[in-house]
Amino acid sequence: MSLVIIGTVAFDAIETPFGKTDKIVGGAATYASLAASYFYDKVKIVGVVGDDFHKEDIDTFSTHGIDVEGLQVKEGEKSFFWAGKYHNDMNSRDTLATELNVLADFDPIIPESYQTCEYLLLGNLTPQIQKATIERLRNRPKLIVLDTMNFWMDVALEDLKETLKLVDVLTINDAEARQLSGEYSLVKAARKIIAMGPRYLIIKKGEHGALLFDSERVFSAPALPLAEVFDPTGAGDTFAGGFIGYLAKVGTINFNNMKNAVIYGSALASFCVEKFGTERIKDLTQQEVESRIKEFVTLSSFVIEP
Amino acid sequence: MSLVIIGTVAFDAIETPFGKTDKIVGGAATYASLAASYFYDKVKIVGVVGDDFHKEDIDTFSTHGIDVEGLQVKEGEKSFFWAGKYHNDMNSRDTLATELNVLADFDPIIPESYQTCEYLLLGNLTPQIQKATIERLRNRPKLIVLDTMNFWMDVALEDLKETLKLVDVLTINDAEARQLSGEYSLVKAARKIIAMGPRYLIIKKGEHGALLFDSERVFSAPALPLAEVFDPTGAGDTFAGGFIGYLAKVGTINFNNMKNAVIYGSALASFCVEKFGTERIKDLTQQEVESRIKEFVTLSSFVIEP
Repeated sequence: MSLVIIGTVAFDAIETPFGKTDKIVGGAATYASLAASYFYDKVKIVGVVGDDFHKEDIDTFSTHGIDVEGLQVKEGEKSFFWAGKYHNDMNSRDTLATELNVLADFDPIIPESYQTCEYLLLGNLTPQIQKATIERLRNRPKLIVLDTMNFWMDVALEDLKETLKLVDVLTINDAEARQLSGEYSLVKAARKIIAMGPRYLIIKKGEHGALLFDSERVFSAPALPLAEVFDPTGAGDTFAGGFIGYLAKVGTINFNNMKNAVIYGSALASFCVEKFGTERIKDLTQQEVESRIKEFVTLSSFVIEP
Repeated sequence: MSLVIIGTVAFDAIETPFGKTDKIVGGAATYASLAASYFYDKVKIVGVVGDDFHKEDIDTFSTHGIDVEGLQVKEGEKSFFWAGKYHNDMNSRDTLATELNVLADFDPIIPESYQTCEYLLLGNLTPQIQKATIERLRNRPKLIVLDTMNFWMDVALEDLKETLKLVDVLTINDAEARQLSGEYSLVKAARKIIAMGPRYLIIKKGEHGALLFDSERVFSAPALPLAEVFDPTGAGDTFAGGFIGYLAKVGTINFNNMKNAVIYGSALASFCVEKFGTERIKDLTQQEVESRIKEFVTLSSFVIEP
């Protein structure tokens, strides 16, 4: 009984209109596991880092009760590194550097203690590694969530399509949903993507919220309007981690719980963008999370008498 | 006791990826008054047309119980005409022709029977005419809603700012909110715009819904995800008409009623885009409207137990 999260654990150097950072800890599995840890206490990560990754950084996971047995540390090698600069609108960014390092030949190892996992989040990584992870689990988890990005649609579309057949939920942004389906209308895009395999599709729209689709229904979640988006890095991974962490906590997969999970994921993501990197989501209190959820309720509720 | 709507009554020729029309009836006051007529039975329009405007077109207003005493018909002149072509994404369009005709020297006449109006919608027109309309009413209406567009921010910003001081609600889109305030963040934009005069600001985001702000609160309304947006012309005017029509019906101005009004406006706008011009919003049944409202409730409601 656990939630396994596979993804990058990395260093990022980020520049936004508000400032810039040196190398700070980032990566999809980092954001997602921290977010999930606020809802569920059996989060386990799979990833790889070099020996430049500090013990204190790994300790941050442990402090959050996150199991790091599946985090390989490669002696004499360097961690994955990404540097990027966001434009003024925060919706577009330039990649300044991408050093794969340990990620180049990453072969995920699933520790024996991870084998009973019921929830699996495949954070953004090559579709081949995402698929291998599913295949290395002896029992299919109850729920598999896959996050991916346009890059894999460009360079590994067939692998991605194979992997999509194996998952329950896909999370992508609106441009990616359009690219993957070839449809501009998100309703039509959702129909086509659900026909590719996933039972549920979540389309992340950043400041415009998120849409959750199954084959018949659609739910529209708002984004919290913020006075300042300080750094959008990791918001999507934080969303995915909050989403699956909440579902692992409630334990029942149905559309109503998925809707709430989208709200919890959105709430965590709204914290993420308030500071650089993982700074804001590292030290949240349960009270802060609950109070943010209440803001989402206030933001979107209305009562129309029939 | 009435709702007065001032705006263009015009001919449009529209081209979208789905087809094109000859000259069809359009104009802000046309869309807005039709939309408002589904909620309120004392809608009165102020506008001007040429003698090319057919009796049957004017009869459409009467069929909906809309008072046309304030609609001037200029003999020997032609109605305002706009032709435009939408691009594939439906979010951008080229103007192919703009013929002001009767609009060039439009001097709005407020009939005596309009003087007791409690609700006033200033549809998109020059800010000077919008202001003159307010000044020609002997008593200030209970609620004044103003719709405008980026064009007036470009060519008549000072007039617009003078008019903004006199209104209760401003409806603009997100790009216009950014332009008017000089702020990218919509939260900051809203603060600045509310400081310019209006007590409430509605930011229309098209397929991403709408945000309602007052000085302290914000409400996020979803847009109904549609398989096809056939023709977006008039959606904003339809929204504004549905919004103020609903408020005129309930008769009490508070934030909760404003939220519902945003949902009713959004519902009417979601019909508008399903066909060319006013075709879809001309013949709605109350049952269709109520069933669309239920779709909005289903679309955005979630229950999180505290």
